[in-house]
Amino acid sequence: MNRVCEMTGADFPLFAFSHCRDVVAAVSKAGGFGVFGATRFGPEELEEELQWIDAHVDGAPYGVDVLVPEVIDARVAGLKDNSERAAAIDPSYRDFAYDLLTSHGVPSERELPPLDDRKGITPENGLALMEVAFRHPIRLIANALGIAPPQMIEEGKKRGVPVAALVGAKEHAIRQAEAGVDIIVAQGGEAGGHCGEVSTLVLIPEVVRALGKAGYDIPVLAAGGIMTGGQMAGMMAAGAQGAWTGSVWLATPEAETSETFREKMVAARSRDTVRSRSRTGKPARQLRTPWHDAWDAPDGPGTLPMPLMGLVSEPSFARIEQAAAAGNAEARELVSYFVGQGVGLIEQVRSSRQVVQDFREEYLDAVGALAATVGME
Amino acid sequence: MNRVCEMTGADFPLFAFSHCRDVVAAVSKAGGFGVFGATRFGPEELEEELQWIDAHVDGAPYGVDVLVPEVIDARVAGLKDNSERAAAIDPSYRDFAYDLLTSHGVPSERELPPLDDRKGITPENGLALMEVAFRHPIRLIANALGIAPPQMIEEGKKRGVPVAALVGAKEHAIRQAEAGVDIIVAQGGEAGGHCGEVSTLVLIPEVVRALGKAGYDIPVLAAGGIMTGGQMAGMMAAGAQGAWTGSVWLATPEAETSETFREKMVAARSRDTVRSRSRTGKPARQLRTPWHDAWDAPDGPGTLPMPLMGLVSEPSFARIEQAAAAGNAEARELVSYFVGQGVGLIEQVRSSRQVVQDFREEYLDAVGALAATVGME
Repeated sequence: MNRVCEMTGADFPLFAFSHCRDVVAAVSKAGGFGVFGATRFGPEELEEELQWIDAHVDGAPYGVDVLVPEVIDARVAGLKDNSERAAAIDPSYRDFAYDLLTSHGVPSERELPPLDDRKGITPENGLALMEVAFRHPIRLIANALGIAPPQMIEEGKKRGVPVAALVGAKEHAIRQAEAGVDIIVAQGGEAGGHCGEVSTLVLIPEVVRALGKAGYDIPVLAAGGIMTGGQMAGMMAAGAQGAWTGSVWLATPEAETSETFREKMVAARSRDTVRSRSRTGKPARQLRTPWHDAWDAPDGPGTLPMPLMGLVSEPSFARIEQAAAAGNAEARELVSYFVGQGVGLIEQVRSSRQVVQDFREEYLDAVGALAATVGME
Repeated sequence: MNRVCEMTGADFPLFAFSHCRDVVAAVSKAGGFGVFGATRFGPEELEEELQWIDAHVDGAPYGVDVLVPEVIDARVAGLKDNSERAAAIDPSYRDFAYDLLTSHGVPSERELPPLDDRKGITPENGLALMEVAFRHPIRLIANALGIAPPQMIEEGKKRGVPVAALVGAKEHAIRQAEAGVDIIVAQGGEAGGHCGEVSTLVLIPEVVRALGKAGYDIPVLAAGGIMTGGQMAGMMAAGAQGAWTGSVWLATPEAETSETFREKMVAARSRDTVRSRSRTGKPARQLRTPWHDAWDAPDGPGTLPMPLMGLVSEPSFARIEQAAAAGNAEARELVSYFVGQGVGLIEQVRSSRQVVQDFREEYLDAVGALAATVGME
């Protein structure tokens, strides 16, 4: 269909970011392009997941997304493992999480559970995952949170694997281009997960134009808020070469999300998300719950830097999910996950395959309707 | 081109909101649809402006936008004129504005200048302007800030003038439909002026779908962030029947903006705006300056309800503009106006007529490029 398809082997330039291997394989087999989000896995686990994908994707192209943070907060730079990180967390933060959970009837503990040092968002963990990814027949590797590291650029060039990088501002796109990335994913502030503040509709032409002016001929994918083929066509009319999507796959039965969260997604409006530091330590859009209101309140404790915040939040959200699954209505209120404003467009749980088919049909309908406005048939 | 064009007489469904009569006439004559923003005028002044438009628009269709606020803050509901309103403002707010200006070298006074009672955003002023508008051959009347008042709906029906209303959330669209409006302008959070938080890209399909489900067959215009024909085509692919634009016209030589502000627009990035209550009392997106940072700071004074905030801010911004025009660099830093994130896409000052022509060309290019992705020619 266009250059991004040529670069990646996708038939239809719908890129599906998912932490679930089933989604990745299903999307790629349906002609889209699955991108496996590796961040929450350790290297051995990732190896296992990618082996599964290789065995189930029928030779269709897929990619991997890792998270190698470029900027490390000075408060955590000297901490060498998760026990040092846990020890650096003032007990008042743990107490705040404990009180918040127990006041909602969620059993909790003041102590943080131990965490595998090969997990958690750190540069070394990201690079270890990248190495695993390159041992597989991937057709794309992506990095979020800052400039793609030189190791990724070099290895990508050597192996002929395009490197994609996520940006939320035009200046960042230029820096990524200078670093040598092959595809820019311009992600608007309506996106789920880490995001900036500029909307997708504004960011796409701004980034496309800035790259062109700076002399870079790099395709741009649009990310943030895209849940339908009509929106995808729209962002391609505005200058993108395809869509990078995440939230829409969370409402598939294959996804890693809980049934509770999927029900909440179907019920949610676009206004029910919040951009908050209270889960990872960096601004990330999530379904808004009393968790976010409490941490972000003017009289709240403030938030910890990445990756410390996750050491407090992730065990808490695991406990919340457990309690909600057991029928605790108050816990259910607290159930949250990374999701964009597009959650307001989710009306039902559909299979990944069905989502790709719907996108294709909606895309064709939208293009046809638009062409009709200028007399094309 | 489509139903919105049939309803309004527009040749190309590009709606241009402007407080400047020259922009309105130029856009309508070029085949778009100028909408005169009446709010800052008194009834006699509006009469004069519309007479000018009638004499200069060559019979092309145009509309008027008034602002009849639906919800009045309880703190101001009992105040019957601007002197009572001015008296209700705690002197600390005036002092804060005074200190802010003088610390930037802008001559100021602690007392508020008197204001004509027929100006300022109140329901009665909005209705008076509406009556003036209906005495002219308008083809559209629009209301922002809440449900269109019954007088507007009745008068519109009687005279065959479509009534449009701005919304920032799907629930509001349904309420407007129930009230009887003919066209919904769905405005995303990236828009200049009063806006919600949901992005245009998400809001358009959400509103279109919600109206359809509720059984309303009402066309939707997309507003917020649209500065190019490519974006316009994009939002039409996503379900809109046209674009409602504002910020792009501020960078025309005809506009009411100062040369200082136009230069700042050309220099600004999309990230240089802020959604703040510090100008009108309700959240409105503006070019961010130390004014906004000061009022919105955690240790700032907080803001006053509409229309009290404007009694403090508008004279201040008038003084700022004067000082900036006289060459005060610190005053220049404070110069601001309502503008959306799309300001990052403004690269030069162009005539209104040129902007319409550029939109048309970009629209055609975008539709052609999109059609090519599915093999249409």
